[in-house]
Amino acid sequence: MKKQYAVLGLGRFGGSLVKEFYELGAEVLAIDIDQDKVDQYAQYVTHAVQFNGIDQEGLKQVGIKNIDHVFVSFGGNIESSVLTCLILKEMGVPTVWAKAHNDNHAKVLEKVGADRVIHPERDMAKRIANHIVSDKIIDYIELSEKYSMVEIVATKKIHNKSLADLDIRAKYGCNIVGILRGQEIIVSPPADEVISMGDVLIVMGHNSDINRFEREGV
Amino acid sequence: MKKQYAVLGLGRFGGSLVKEFYELGAEVLAIDIDQDKVDQYAQYVTHAVQFNGIDQEGLKQVGIKNIDHVFVSFGGNIESSVLTCLILKEMGVPTVWAKAHNDNHAKVLEKVGADRVIHPERDMAKRIANHIVSDKIIDYIELSEKYSMVEIVATKKIHNKSLADLDIRAKYGCNIVGILRGQEIIVSPPADEVISMGDVLIVMGHNSDINRFEREGV
Ligand SMILES: Nc1ncnc2c1ncn2[C@@H]1O[C@H](COP(=O)(O)OP(=O)(O)OP(=O)(O)O)[C@@H](O)[C@H]1O
Ligand SMILES: Nc1ncnc2c1ncn2[C@@H]1O[C@H](COP(=O)(O)OP(=O)(O)OP(=O)(O)O)[C@@H](O)[C@H]1O
Ligand SMILES: [Ca+2]
Ligand SMILES: [Ca+2]
Ligand SMILES: [Ca+2]
Ligand SMILES: [Ca+2]
Repeated sequence: MKKQYAVLGLGRFGGSLVKEFYELGAEVLAIDIDQDKVDQYAQYVTHAVQFNGIDQEGLKQVGIKNIDHVFVSFGGNIESSVLTCLILKEMGVPTVWAKAHNDNHAKVLEKVGADRVIHPERDMAKRIANHIVSDKIIDYIELSEKYSMVEIVATKKIHNKSLADLDIRAKYGCNIVGILRGQEIIVSPPADEVISMGDVLIVMGHNSDINRFEREGV
Repeated sequence: MKKQYAVLGLGRFGGSLVKEFYELGAEVLAIDIDQDKVDQYAQYVTHAVQFNGIDQEGLKQVGIKNIDHVFVSFGGNIESSVLTCLILKEMGVPTVWAKAHNDNHAKVLEKVGADRVIHPERDMAKRIANHIVSDKIIDYIELSEKYSMVEIVATKKIHNKSLADLDIRAKYGCNIVGILRGQEIIVSPPADEVISMGDVLIVMGHNSDINRFEREGV
């Protein structure tokens, strides 16, 4: 059977989540204490209902027990968010994810059984700070604590040089696993591939190696 | 000279930005209308000052003209955010980025000259919705409109099979550019590399190819 999702709290984060689920064709129940929000998102969901997330009777009536994965997204209202998570876990919802307002909020959410705590603003700030400070880094994924993959813009410094000329693996210990050129992508580029300024290099490696390459090599 | 940053508005996003800049060793001026916020973040910044972002005299006094890159992060207060961006651009700040509350806010920010508009909640919701709906996708970067790189968890289905056995490039048109196994990473894995359940495959390719691989191949 298709998985059933519910989003409680239709702020910027919960509301965006609902729209994304809609685009991905997922079935979603949306709940907000504010009728205007309910009306605004009704078009994107299977059901949209107005009530307070801490209202156990309301949760029973919408059949929350049959939902596989619930998302609690009232970050600003810490007490309600914590209480709602507690109730959802006690009612037997298999997976409950919650948005945290700050680190203390996160700790309490984990204590009451939230299966995962999300910090959208903090995580996006991290991405953007890296991006701004470096000037060359466009985006990144942390692959593990030590390894990352980053998109780095090729500057004048390496314009018209081949990967063999640059010898990045030997000099910096990191690997170019792809090159984006306009809308095209070159996967596992060969050693004789020539870089142009503005190419986006997709680099995988140890964080310290990538940092060194980004500062000195490109 | 080292680049100078300013963050106006120390909510969850602006506040996180300040902390990230601090960890990256960048020089930051922090401004908030709320003295409590100013006190809370003073330890992370070069200067922390309390005033309203629309106060042109205040901006002059802190030397905003000498800042290279200003971040306006009062999403909830649309009028102030727009007016502040307008003033900053008129005062000659080279780069102004602003956080938008919604799409209309974003449009107005662009009209008044914001160099980039950020939607932290929406962007993170997009990542998370993809992650939840797929069950196998851990994270992704959009490389272009058509291409992405994703982290996909290897399931029982491909346990103990080599990359040559799976022949993913021929069957699905996408490429495994790396494998994460515990804390170790295998870059550009050879064809005889054997996959174990729980390995994280780093897959690059056309969005539709990745989707097909994720649904049918893994
Ligand atoms: N107890 C509750 N039950 C149901 N909905 C609630 C409850 N408390 C708040 N909400 C709703 O949750 C939504 C998000 O609330 P709020 O704006 O306080 O959080 P936020 O973390 O700042 O949101 P975002 O940053 O995602 O915009 C609002 O639409 C609000 O009406
Ligand atoms: N005109 C202003 N001048 C200076 N600071 C302001 C102004 N308006 C709001 N702020 C500050 O900006 C910060 C963020 O405001 P608010 O919480 O409304 O935005 P937000 O987008 O919901 O934030 P976030 O989601 O990042 O927590 C607050 O600390 C607030 O005091
Ligand atoms: Ca927010
Ligand atoms: Ca940058
Ligand atoms: Ca808010
Ligand atoms: Ca998932």
